[in-house]
Amino acid sequence: MDEPELTAEANAETARRMCEAEPTLVDVRAAADVVPGMTAATILTSGAPLRWEEYTGGQRDGIIGAAQFEGLAGSADEAVAALDSGEITVASCQDHSCIGSLAGIYTASMPVFVVDDARSGTRAFCNLFEGPLPKRLNYGMYDEEVRETLLFLERSIMPPLAEAVRRSGGIPLRPIIRRALNMGDELHSRNTAATLLFTRELFGPLLDLESSDPAGVRRVLDYIRSGDYFFLRLAMAAAKATADAAHGVPHSSVVTSMAFNCRDYAIRVGGLGDEWFRGPLPSVEQVKLFDGHTRDEIEFMGGESTITETVGLGGMAQAAAFPLVDYQGGSTEEMADRNRSMYEIAVAEHPEFRIPFLNFRGVPVGIDVRRVTETGITPAIDIAVAGKGGGQIGAGAFRAPLACFEAAARAHLELRQEVPQA
Amino acid sequence: MDEPELTAEANAETARRMCEAEPTLVDVRAAADVVPGMTAATILTSGAPLRWEEYTGGQRDGIIGAAQFEGLAGSADEAVAALDSGEITVASCQDHSCIGSLAGIYTASMPVFVVDDARSGTRAFCNLFEGPLPKRLNYGMYDEEVRETLLFLERSIMPPLAEAVRRSGGIPLRPIIRRALNMGDELHSRNTAATLLFTRELFGPLLDLESSDPAGVRRVLDYIRSGDYFFLRLAMAAAKATADAAHGVPHSSVVTSMAFNCRDYAIRVGGLGDEWFRGPLPSVEQVKLFDGHTRDEIEFMGGESTITETVGLGGMAQAAAFPLVDYQGGSTEEMADRNRSMYEIAVAEHPEFRIPFLNFRGVPVGIDVRRVTETGITPAIDIAVAGKGGGQIGAGAFRAPLACFEAAARAHLELRQEVPQA
Repeated sequence: MDEPELTAEANAETARRMCEAEPTLVDVRAAADVVPGMTAATILTSGAPLRWEEYTGGQRDGIIGAAQFEGLAGSADEAVAALDSGEITVASCQDHSCIGSLAGIYTASMPVFVVDDARSGTRAFCNLFEGPLPKRLNYGMYDEEVRETLLFLERSIMPPLAEAVRRSGGIPLRPIIRRALNMGDELHSRNTAATLLFTRELFGPLLDLESSDPAGVRRVLDYIRSGDYFFLRLAMAAAKATADAAHGVPHSSVVTSMAFNCRDYAIRVGGLGDEWFRGPLPSVEQVKLFDGHTRDEIEFMGGESTITETVGLGGMAQAAAFPLVDYQGGSTEEMADRNRSMYEIAVAEHPEFRIPFLNFRGVPVGIDVRRVTETGITPAIDIAVAGKGGGQIGAGAFRAPLACFEAAARAHLELRQEVPQA
Repeated sequence: MDEPELTAEANAETARRMCEAEPTLVDVRAAADVVPGMTAATILTSGAPLRWEEYTGGQRDGIIGAAQFEGLAGSADEAVAALDSGEITVASCQDHSCIGSLAGIYTASMPVFVVDDARSGTRAFCNLFEGPLPKRLNYGMYDEEVRETLLFLERSIMPPLAEAVRRSGGIPLRPIIRRALNMGDELHSRNTAATLLFTRELFGPLLDLESSDPAGVRRVLDYIRSGDYFFLRLAMAAAKATADAAHGVPHSSVVTSMAFNCRDYAIRVGGLGDEWFRGPLPSVEQVKLFDGHTRDEIEFMGGESTITETVGLGGMAQAAAFPLVDYQGGSTEEMADRNRSMYEIAVAEHPEFRIPFLNFRGVPVGIDVRRVTETGITPAIDIAVAGKGGGQIGAGAFRAPLACFEAAARAHLELRQEVPQA
């Protein structure tokens, strides 16, 4: 078999693994108890790793806030000192099987969803949606109110939620994602249907809990109902478990991770080990800002929810989620055209995750860095927009930068040339 | 004001009432307790009224089955005798504020949803989904199994469901319909999201019931989860309350009801009193039959779920429900085109019920019989298909017959000519 064939076969295998994953929510636990390598003095944040001093703006603020929240420092100044000295370690979410929303801040005490892919044995984690308040740690803000919310999640939500999940015997996420794609979600910027479907799965176990913890049951339901984004964290954990299951096929030129920090966008490729191929931050294709905000306020403070696009959801499945036109702006015709173009850079179509508008065509799965480079078409990504002052200021359709894919394609080509001919 | 202006103003008022209705589920009761004019010996069935002997096929079988179910006759022969003698009365659902699904069979003991429009004071009723079994009374089948299902609804579902609805203080249906239109439902042949949204509204009251009736709470949840069509009956009752609120504006040429029995399709018009304008049965535009069935098996045994189209849902909002392409066949392009054409026969667009794919254009509301006649475009209707042997054999997009609209337009014109000029 020659190298082009090896790559084609490796890519097919990578996509096959993505298509076959069966992520299941099995538990909700404190990060310290389950996340590999998590210590009391570790803070995880989004994107390819940077040195602590390279983090700026909201992402830096989030890390400093996390140190205070976790009791590792009594003030922001003390936090900076401890971070400068290395007493507090900053690490990359994905190196700990976690996946970060926006700044993606994890500390040891925070509750995380535990999602297992039964087929491959991968396990991934995502922390919980902080709720609909504009001030959130993952948007680079920390104060008493943010602290109260985080403590509420840990003390009041985690125990009954975890109990309900355990009593359920595990909640399969694949069927929820499959159905939600038929109900206006693309599982990144829109998770309305998935949140409802998940809630229904949880209702039986919650009923069983009613007699022992009636207040806890109502808190959990109120929390899940507080926004339509509850499921996003589960979609992200499911996508991370799925992408990790697909990573590591030799010769594969398919993307298995996309993430950004405050400085750069980066991708990993299935056959190219753990190297991050970096490029500039994503470009705005279409953005809609909340009233009173302007484009010059947009700040990138990290984000790994693009793991959803990595497995064929989000911007790769925009035509499943026309309601987004109200949230992101643009037109549904543009969304449909953008979605159709994504098939040009993907190596497969999902057999179960389908887009009704495209007459139930499967979502495009497996972004091939070579095809991106050849066509110049980069993945469309649906992301929430953070503002320089912290907090969310809007949402939009963005594009991953070509440079990452070019760098990865070059590395893939070099590796190919090293392969002895069979 | 001259007559064309009077009609235009009347039509705007009719559509305005349709757009403003706020139907709310307030109770679940036995038909005998709440339906006006309902007696122990009354059977209600779908469509403009016929003489008993004119009912044929599945609709006749349904009526006969209903007499047995209600204990009005010990056998089918006895039922026929009692119907022939007039001992048992057959009446039209809509003359009793009810709305019939398929054959639309109502007897005194059957539970019905009670839906009030708070703005206009109208009240409408719809009986309960019999569940996903192919054998159902409203599909013209009656045997011991059907009887058991109906008794289960009456004895095991109605009490806890009614209690939960009463504890809720009333469940507003307008917000559920509004959201479901953004989640792939058109509220006629697809009610998946609406069923979920309704279920979530019921969670709180069901939790409160858990301590007193744990088994009842689980039965209700299992029943609602047994299919994705639970909400259809609520959509129908909501549409009936809405259409009735809009009926009776003098000079209006807007349709306020569409229904069919086993022989004819018929419409009522806002300014033309209670007269039914009849035409032939609907024509098949696009149909998809379950495996093993053929077109020559299709039987019309009545149906009033076209009340949803009357208020701008169902076939009038197909582009909100592309997943239907899997259920009804055809293509999403055809659905979008068909939906766009419906604006040519409607007098208004709903301010809150919007179609994401059409960049959130409001659904077309208020079918003007004059526009239908002028354009030759008749309302698209999404209907389930019954088979000659009873039971559902498929679903499709049908068309209302032009003749009804022509007859109504003529009657409207005659009435205009009688109006003295101001």
